[in-house]
Amino acid sequence: MPNANEKARKYSRDHAERFRRELHELIRIPSLSADPAHDDDVKRAAHWLAEHLHAMGVESARVMPTAGHPVVYAEWTGAGADKPTVLVYGHYDVVPAAMEDGWNTPPFEPVEKDGKIYARGATDDKGQLFIHVKALESYLEGAGGAPVNVKFLLEGEEEISSPNLAPFIKANLNLLKADVCVISDSSMSSIEKPAITHSLRGMTYIQIDVHGPTDDLHSGFWGGAAHNPALALVEIISKLYNPDKTIAVPGFYDDVAPLTKAEREMIAKSELTEEQFKKVTGVPATWGDKKYTLRERVSARPTLDVNGMWSGYSGPGPKTIIPAKAGAKLSSRLVGNQDPDKIFGLLKKHIESITPPTVKVTVNLLTKGKPALIPFDLPEMQAASRAYEKGWGHAPVFTRGGGSIPIVADIYDMMKIPVVMMGYGLDSDGLHAPNEHYTIEMFHRGIETAIVYLEELASLRRSADKEHALSAG
Amino acid sequence: MPNANEKARKYSRDHAERFRRELHELIRIPSLSADPAHDDDVKRAAHWLAEHLHAMGVESARVMPTAGHPVVYAEWTGAGADKPTVLVYGHYDVVPAAMEDGWNTPPFEPVEKDGKIYARGATDDKGQLFIHVKALESYLEGAGGAPVNVKFLLEGEEEISSPNLAPFIKANLNLLKADVCVISDSSMSSIEKPAITHSLRGMTYIQIDVHGPTDDLHSGFWGGAAHNPALALVEIISKLYNPDKTIAVPGFYDDVAPLTKAEREMIAKSELTEEQFKKVTGVPATWGDKKYTLRERVSARPTLDVNGMWSGYSGPGPKTIIPAKAGAKLSSRLVGNQDPDKIFGLLKKHIESITPPTVKVTVNLLTKGKPALIPFDLPEMQAASRAYEKGWGHAPVFTRGGGSIPIVADIYDMMKIPVVMMGYGLDSDGLHAPNEHYTIEMFHRGIETAIVYLEELASLRRSADKEHALSAG
Repeated sequence: MPNANEKARKYSRDHAERFRRELHELIRIPSLSADPAHDDDVKRAAHWLAEHLHAMGVESARVMPTAGHPVVYAEWTGAGADKPTVLVYGHYDVVPAAMEDGWNTPPFEPVEKDGKIYARGATDDKGQLFIHVKALESYLEGAGGAPVNVKFLLEGEEEISSPNLAPFIKANLNLLKADVCVISDSSMSSIEKPAITHSLRGMTYIQIDVHGPTDDLHSGFWGGAAHNPALALVEIISKLYNPDKTIAVPGFYDDVAPLTKAEREMIAKSELTEEQFKKVTGVPATWGDKKYTLRERVSARPTLDVNGMWSGYSGPGPKTIIPAKAGAKLSSRLVGNQDPDKIFGLLKKHIESITPPTVKVTVNLLTKGKPALIPFDLPEMQAASRAYEKGWGHAPVFTRGGGSIPIVADIYDMMKIPVVMMGYGLDSDGLHAPNEHYTIEMFHRGIETAIVYLEELASLRRSADKEHALSAG
Repeated sequence: MPNANEKARKYSRDHAERFRRELHELIRIPSLSADPAHDDDVKRAAHWLAEHLHAMGVESARVMPTAGHPVVYAEWTGAGADKPTVLVYGHYDVVPAAMEDGWNTPPFEPVEKDGKIYARGATDDKGQLFIHVKALESYLEGAGGAPVNVKFLLEGEEEISSPNLAPFIKANLNLLKADVCVISDSSMSSIEKPAITHSLRGMTYIQIDVHGPTDDLHSGFWGGAAHNPALALVEIISKLYNPDKTIAVPGFYDDVAPLTKAEREMIAKSELTEEQFKKVTGVPATWGDKKYTLRERVSARPTLDVNGMWSGYSGPGPKTIIPAKAGAKLSSRLVGNQDPDKIFGLLKKHIESITPPTVKVTVNLLTKGKPALIPFDLPEMQAASRAYEKGWGHAPVFTRGGGSIPIVADIYDMMKIPVVMMGYGLDSDGLHAPNEHYTIEMFHRGIETAIVYLEELASLRRSADKEHALSAG
């Protein structure tokens, strides 16, 4: 007779197509958190999720307000108070997308093609959070209940760096109380190589605005004696880097914890060759600090990238102006033990110091997040490793993620529970880019692995209560 | 008994308000030549002008096609074959304008306030070309005829550097045949200081496009090992300038004719102080090659300005991408004897040579124009000087204009006639900028000066046939 885990996995296979149809519905809501014009869509996505969980029988599902976009909260506690509780974190907001960026199909009309779902949010993070929703449904409908209690914390502001989630967690510590937090918002290099992310980079995201003349000037009448603000911005940005591609901001590297030999060996297990890098990204050649391997550069070393830059006229044809202003968005990915606020101070001070008196500059912090590093020998981490072996079919490696999920550090700090990042995406999914997609097999294998993980957590709790050092304090 | 000149001037005063109402009508047509979405508006402005001239009694007025936007041509030959013919050149197209650029009132709804007309095109060049239309009307209606023959050549592509005007002139040399060309598309520093422009800068206008990854990349997953195209563009542009603000492109200055002592003395007559510069432009401090005065830098020296720059995300909030591409529009103002094509070649070669192998670059020529320098001792120039004295009330200085009217060099070369630039604008009119405006008194004084100039040309022809060295060959 099949056990609960096997029943749930069978149920998930029997309802695979419906699960995807439901995911399409969620994806169709353009829940862009960065753009105020889409505020109602973000709200709509939250209500869709709460209603969906409710319809699954999770009657506690609800939309809870924050100072920004709302949180969807739900809990199923049918496993009983003696069973552990897992908190699933995910985000239902997405980054902007527009046809003119190079999409082959409208970004909010999911298309299934060649085994993939093409749409904004397909992998980041609607597809991945929905895996846990469907894993719970598979237990409830296929096996009459789940082996552990499950809580959902689904936010709508991850893509704008979760400004209101830490306060929400702080105000609701009792409601959210759990033994472990699981997040699926990361990726692996190929379907045979699952990865558990145990480290994430933090972020300091700034905007530089350069002001020159009061209004745009005719470049013929004033060109030659007015400092062009676009040129001034160019001069400023060019001075933020050294010729060896390191960052030229004094003090920037001061708090970076050096990589140990053991850490570099662990990182080397996730190979990333020049050829792989070029193939996936399309760049003509790789770039960066040659003292570190490619994988180290994109995961274990800090960065400074221009995310956007603008000045003057960018329409068709020529326009002969000296622009009144120029601006840029720059973000720095941080590693332990860099502090986002300190880095902002260093950036601001340096930029102001190199700005010539012929223009004016302002430097503002747009968002920030702390880096996170969680030990991979914790039992909740090892349970995740077994879940991949049994549910996915391959043993995972523990990797450092180059991205930033600011809330990971916050949950780890505030709730004192391990955060297990079981990513079900592929590195090549193109998240944040045109033609973002999610491999359908990843979605279904993810659901089965999530089902197995819940069982692994149940047995762990019974056999290893004392190992929960972190959850106690 | 008043002579024709006095009758025409009186007529122009008696109908001043109607003249402005008619100008408003022309301004209301958003004839943006750079934007294909406004092609019909450009055509509408051409037809409005042809119909207006026709209604004035100039029955030859017509809209003539070119490969781009049309030309408005009209001729009044009532003075007779023994009288000289003046060709009035003007342009009815305008540069783009949008409220979000900082306009206080809609750019295509002219507003009269504090003695000024606020609107795109008010001074550049609708208001100034209309001066000549109304000067002719004043003669025809107020005095029964004009003292010289008048032809109009009004184009719709000046703001995109007149790609089709030179071919049009070449194909219609007989139709356009004249003894002198007058252009009002320049300005003076104050109403008491009229200026006749005898030199203009040329232009080489390029677009640089930098391509990195195939699509935008997630900056967390790839940041640190992919050369950011916005940074690559920054590095390229920063290398186009030397620390002393000169242009670092090899060979750029090779063909620049050195300024003589006499030329520098003439230029010094049009004073431009640091304080004046700062007051008009709003810049915190001036900039540029300190070996030259401010006036020399903006009129007699070549420049390189960034007119527009773009990359990645510029919307609200953060977006954590490495942009797939970055671009910029740059234009170089040229002086005698720089050749626009040669300068383009130098720019392209240098930019390609400094582009690293981590990105790809393309450099395209958007538009170009030759610099022009016309001797100011020609009798047609001196007649213009007298017209200002009598019609405007102040003797003018001969100045070098920093802007580019590419067609000036073309008319001078192809038609072998002097080109007299009698500008009726003010340096502070804000052309090409938000809140462009035209001082109403300049408009009316301009009409009276244009009326006087026609009479000065008539007498010149009678007394000084032999001085027309240029018009003969």
